[in-house]
Amino acid sequence: MKSSDRYPGRETDDKSNNQDQENQSETTHNKIPLLSDPWKPCRQPRAIVKGWLLKVRCCLGTVCGMEWYGYAALGILTALLSFLMDLTVAKLLRAHQWLYMKLEGSLLLQFFCWTLYPACLCAFGSSFSHNICPFSTGSGVPEVRTMLTGIEMPHYLSLTHLFTKFLGLICTLAAGSTVFLGKVGPFVHISTMVGGYIHNLCALIQPGEEKAAKEMLVVASAVGVASCFGAPIAGVLFGVEVMSSHFTLKNYCPSFFSSACGALTFCLLSFWSGDGETLQVLFRTNFPTVLPFYPLEILLFAFLGLLCGAVSCCYLFCHRWILRFTKTNPVLIKMLTTEKALYSGMVVFFLASLTFPHSAGQYMASKYTMKQLLTSLLDSSQWSSKSHNASVQLEPLLEWSSSGTPVCFSLAFFLLMKMWMLVLACTLPLPAGYFMPVFIYGAAIGRLLGEAVVYVSSMGVGLGQQWASNLNPGGYALAGAAAYSGAVTHTLSPALLAIELTGQFSHAVPILVSTLLANALARRGHRPSFYDALAISKKLPHLPSLKKACPRLPFTPVGQVLGVKLEQLQRAAGPLEVQRVVNSSSETQIPVVDSHESQILLGFVLRSELLMFLRHCQTESLDQCLNDVCCIHPTSVLLSPYNTVQEAHSILSVVGAQTLFVADKGRLVGLITLPEMKRILEDLAKDI
Amino acid sequence: MKSSDRYPGRETDDKSNNQDQENQSETTHNKIPLLSDPWKPCRQPRAIVKGWLLKVRCCLGTVCGMEWYGYAALGILTALLSFLMDLTVAKLLRAHQWLYMKLEGSLLLQFFCWTLYPACLCAFGSSFSHNICPFSTGSGVPEVRTMLTGIEMPHYLSLTHLFTKFLGLICTLAAGSTVFLGKVGPFVHISTMVGGYIHNLCALIQPGEEKAAKEMLVVASAVGVASCFGAPIAGVLFGVEVMSSHFTLKNYCPSFFSSACGALTFCLLSFWSGDGETLQVLFRTNFPTVLPFYPLEILLFAFLGLLCGAVSCCYLFCHRWILRFTKTNPVLIKMLTTEKALYSGMVVFFLASLTFPHSAGQYMASKYTMKQLLTSLLDSSQWSSKSHNASVQLEPLLEWSSSGTPVCFSLAFFLLMKMWMLVLACTLPLPAGYFMPVFIYGAAIGRLLGEAVVYVSSMGVGLGQQWASNLNPGGYALAGAAAYSGAVTHTLSPALLAIELTGQFSHAVPILVSTLLANALARRGHRPSFYDALAISKKLPHLPSLKKACPRLPFTPVGQVLGVKLEQLQRAAGPLEVQRVVNSSSETQIPVVDSHESQILLGFVLRSELLMFLRHCQTESLDQCLNDVCCIHPTSVLLSPYNTVQEAHSILSVVGAQTLFVADKGRLVGLITLPEMKRILEDLAKDI
Repeated sequence: MKSSDRYPGRETDDKSNNQDQENQSETTHNKIPLLSDPWKPCRQPRAIVKGWLLKVRCCLGTVCGMEWYGYAALGILTALLSFLMDLTVAKLLRAHQWLYMKLEGSLLLQFFCWTLYPACLCAFGSSFSHNICPFSTGSGVPEVRTMLTGIEMPHYLSLTHLFTKFLGLICTLAAGSTVFLGKVGPFVHISTMVGGYIHNLCALIQPGEEKAAKEMLVVASAVGVASCFGAPIAGVLFGVEVMSSHFTLKNYCPSFFSSACGALTFCLLSFWSGDGETLQVLFRTNFPTVLPFYPLEILLFAFLGLLCGAVSCCYLFCHRWILRFTKTNPVLIKMLTTEKALYSGMVVFFLASLTFPHSAGQYMASKYTMKQLLTSLLDSSQWSSKSHNASVQLEPLLEWSSSGTPVCFSLAFFLLMKMWMLVLACTLPLPAGYFMPVFIYGAAIGRLLGEAVVYVSSMGVGLGQQWASNLNPGGYALAGAAAYSGAVTHTLSPALLAIELTGQFSHAVPILVSTLLANALARRGHRPSFYDALAISKKLPHLPSLKKACPRLPFTPVGQVLGVKLEQLQRAAGPLEVQRVVNSSSETQIPVVDSHESQILLGFVLRSELLMFLRHCQTESLDQCLNDVCCIHPTSVLLSPYNTVQEAHSILSVVGAQTLFVADKGRLVGLITLPEMKRILEDLAKDI
Repeated sequence: MKSSDRYPGRETDDKSNNQDQENQSETTHNKIPLLSDPWKPCRQPRAIVKGWLLKVRCCLGTVCGMEWYGYAALGILTALLSFLMDLTVAKLLRAHQWLYMKLEGSLLLQFFCWTLYPACLCAFGSSFSHNICPFSTGSGVPEVRTMLTGIEMPHYLSLTHLFTKFLGLICTLAAGSTVFLGKVGPFVHISTMVGGYIHNLCALIQPGEEKAAKEMLVVASAVGVASCFGAPIAGVLFGVEVMSSHFTLKNYCPSFFSSACGALTFCLLSFWSGDGETLQVLFRTNFPTVLPFYPLEILLFAFLGLLCGAVSCCYLFCHRWILRFTKTNPVLIKMLTTEKALYSGMVVFFLASLTFPHSAGQYMASKYTMKQLLTSLLDSSQWSSKSHNASVQLEPLLEWSSSGTPVCFSLAFFLLMKMWMLVLACTLPLPAGYFMPVFIYGAAIGRLLGEAVVYVSSMGVGLGQQWASNLNPGGYALAGAAAYSGAVTHTLSPALLAIELTGQFSHAVPILVSTLLANALARRGHRPSFYDALAISKKLPHLPSLKKACPRLPFTPVGQVLGVKLEQLQRAAGPLEVQRVVNSSSETQIPVVDSHESQILLGFVLRSELLMFLRHCQTESLDQCLNDVCCIHPTSVLLSPYNTVQEAHSILSVVGAQTLFVADKGRLVGLITLPEMKRILEDLAKDI
């Protein structure tokens, strides 16, 4: 509080960095519609409603700050959206399955039903999102990460964007396991958009206590994961990890609170809509509780982690290659700029014809939806030993070896095909998440290893026959899912997410071991993660991603990248000089130097004070100088031109200063604000 | 890397902030004993061993950086210590129980056995720790939190301290549930001491790549919790929470890795020493998996959270009162400074005579150890309904209603008595943790509520009779434990700890809800947490705690608290002035101003360069000035005297700058380093 008394510029910067100071009094006025809008009709009823609303606000305010209601609303709203989306997608998927079953008998009609339904959905989704909001394609996580470093990207927080992303994502998800894309990434983005909207609402209700939108965005990123899966703690860990260098602990409790609200709402909605007797995890498993795993199996889990790490490196390489390819191949560039719907339709048709259950799809369990795929892979019974015994057919096994092929072949074929199909699907211009497919892919890797271990053990090799009957391939699938998705995204929260999704705490240690080792392998040599690659490809001003592309880049001295010559005032400036500066500069803080010759930085004056000074001079027609009338505020933190971009960035985003002056030996050199930092980073990204 | 090229002072500051620059070359030389010690005997074998060691180092270095081996060693060592301690304490407790049983028949002998055994242990522990290392009493968490803000407290990281704390803690724990103190806090401290030692070792092996000790300490604080309970993720969350304002994400992966190593080692050791077939959680529970709780019970869990929050406020008030009382009461002051052993013995004798199973102890299940108490409280069967039916006696119930009193009476009596007994036990000058007792106390609150709900429901009131049989009071106990311990420490990680301790993921949502609400109530009005109160009472230089005691304190401008007049050089300084400054100042970075009149800060020179300059002048007998010979390094970040202590503190601890110059309008005013910050905070703490 006190600091803002001394640095009035800091507070005003929050809300009006991009608008002129002179408009500010009107803006503030407009922001309180509850209090004054005299020209509107029905004054009497409006006044009564206003009075009641103010009373409600007072009552709510006594319990806790208005922002906490915002956090609760954020959690509940996001969970509601998530539940609605799940419901719609389930209905659309069931409609597809119903149609496909009805057409039983005619192979051609079944083929067209199988391929055209997702192709049309994706073409529609692609065209829709392209026309309404072209930014809405892709995951959204790279953009969210960029916004969380403090850089403003207003396009990515608009309500139109929210609407487009929501509908587009439904189309993508309804295309099912054919397209093999997920929900998490866009949902994190949707959650931040809801967060941004609620932040504006809070600012409207309680105009005095404006807080930086960034806090709400950090909370929202945690809520996105939490309400997508009903996994509050993994959500918070994701929120911690998604921050680039420092996690502000002020956001920790709000994140937990909002995530808990979101997860609770999501679980309650699922419970009320379903037939269970209690709140359940999303993917119920039936792991044995008495002997979940032998301690020596830890070594196998460690090997699984390394395997997942290695496969993830291969996948990330292919992904980076296709990102480059879509940027350089002229045919693809043309297709992806003008004929998005056609491209989406064609690619999805191609993918769907491959997964058609009467063609290669029979070896890939393609009849399963994404959720069924994961549930089947996490099944705790041993398929490879059961498939010998034809009389005992297990439900999940039914689909994986429907063509009579061995399960291991099906799994290997699934892994081989889905690798490049997923890479291809990543080029689709649709709102789509890339986490869930990777999670399922990892589960398949784990399952394959698990089944192989069971097979080898039942032969009497290695762990021995007496162990074989107690081995649980589902545990390997779970560990594999966490390890592979963690390796692809370079995060550790998937380990906790895997636990929260299944409620299987017994496997916590093996999951953690595999995830850590997979991450260690994937992060070697400072390779970019999946999201880093997307950010680099989109040239987003996200410093940690740019660092992956060019390690020396964050160490560029700020002196080298400072922008155009800075407008400044000397202490003895008269009205003419002040008028010139006010006209030519749009910054809210104008630096004041001792004299134009010495350039010794004294501090800054606020734009509003300069305007007052000008008005004062006009009315009183006096020829006073700046020093006599205006208060020169001391600068907060001063950088030298030899400070690196990284240091400037972390001071801006961590210390919360809005404007940093750069001075060399006391002489003013330049000024860095968040918009200026955005420009600097965008310039640096261009050169990569 | 590049930044350190430009600011050589920054790197040297890490290792030699307290020692003179001139000794540095010798110091570095001494730090590489592997390479050169020509005067020692057995040169030939030593050379061979050296060669092998260097080869091993090279091999290890190719896999990953040396610090990762350090993190692994930290986890494994801490887990080993934790396991050893558990083993010793279990043996000592069994010896006590055996003796007590052998004396069956003679009430007086039994009384003396019951009271004198813990009293003697505590008196010994108190006297031992007082004589060897007087700082080793108490929890250690407040000191660790202070060290994690970057402030050096070398006394708290010595090996003697580690040894004293370890032995003292064994004495405290062996006194059992009579003294009712725990292990976590001191173990976090022990872990940081091990971390500090391993950090020194790493620096010795790889002298080129020294890293700040702070990183290892952050990791160690997570490992402490993880290897105390085998709970890796809760450990990491504790590590995040224990940081005052910003968690550096660079420490996130190491924390996870080291915690996983610690937890895995701890689980494996427990497995090998026990008779289980697999790795188990510390407190096995038998909660029903089909219907863990009804969704409507969430409301009861929320009420439990609020109840725990309210009780925690009361407890914290009593705790703060007794802390003040021990500081102001002259008798206690005298006792606690000179007669620590006597005081400990007397208090423990008093506590033990109260818990004697033939006196009030029979209503408090005092025969149970801490571990048995928690296990009994987490039992999922309903005591209140079972105790009506005398023929079915449950094992945990046996002790809680051994005197034939109703269970609810026993629980209420336990809560009432343990409240003040725990407050009294907190004054004991012993190495002791205060988390576990609080955790058990919370479990008792939850159990009491759970049993009450079962009783009321079985009467047909509220939730109804058909629900009553499915209610699980153990779930309430678990949620209560997390909520109460979270409220007392103002943290949320106990929620995850409760899950990891019991493996009961089914209760994740209720636990989270209660913990959040309890925290919300406990944190209202910026009351200090348990650890804050300890830090304030000990006058530690920990800014967030001081803020709780005096909210305006962190907003003190640095200009007001800057120390003595700063030594500075002018650009044209000759050898005489340089000699004077080198003699009078001990800083490694000496500021250089334009001239003593203008005081415009140009940058700084390193002490080592000044010494070189002097040598240069002496040998060549030239009268050169500073500007001609030395390189004036630009200052990194410059503060103004109007910046607050909080801002300076966060820049120091977050941005990683080691020396901050303070300048007003280009003129040098002062300099802030971490030791200087420590002095400032200690001065500020004095005034509270």
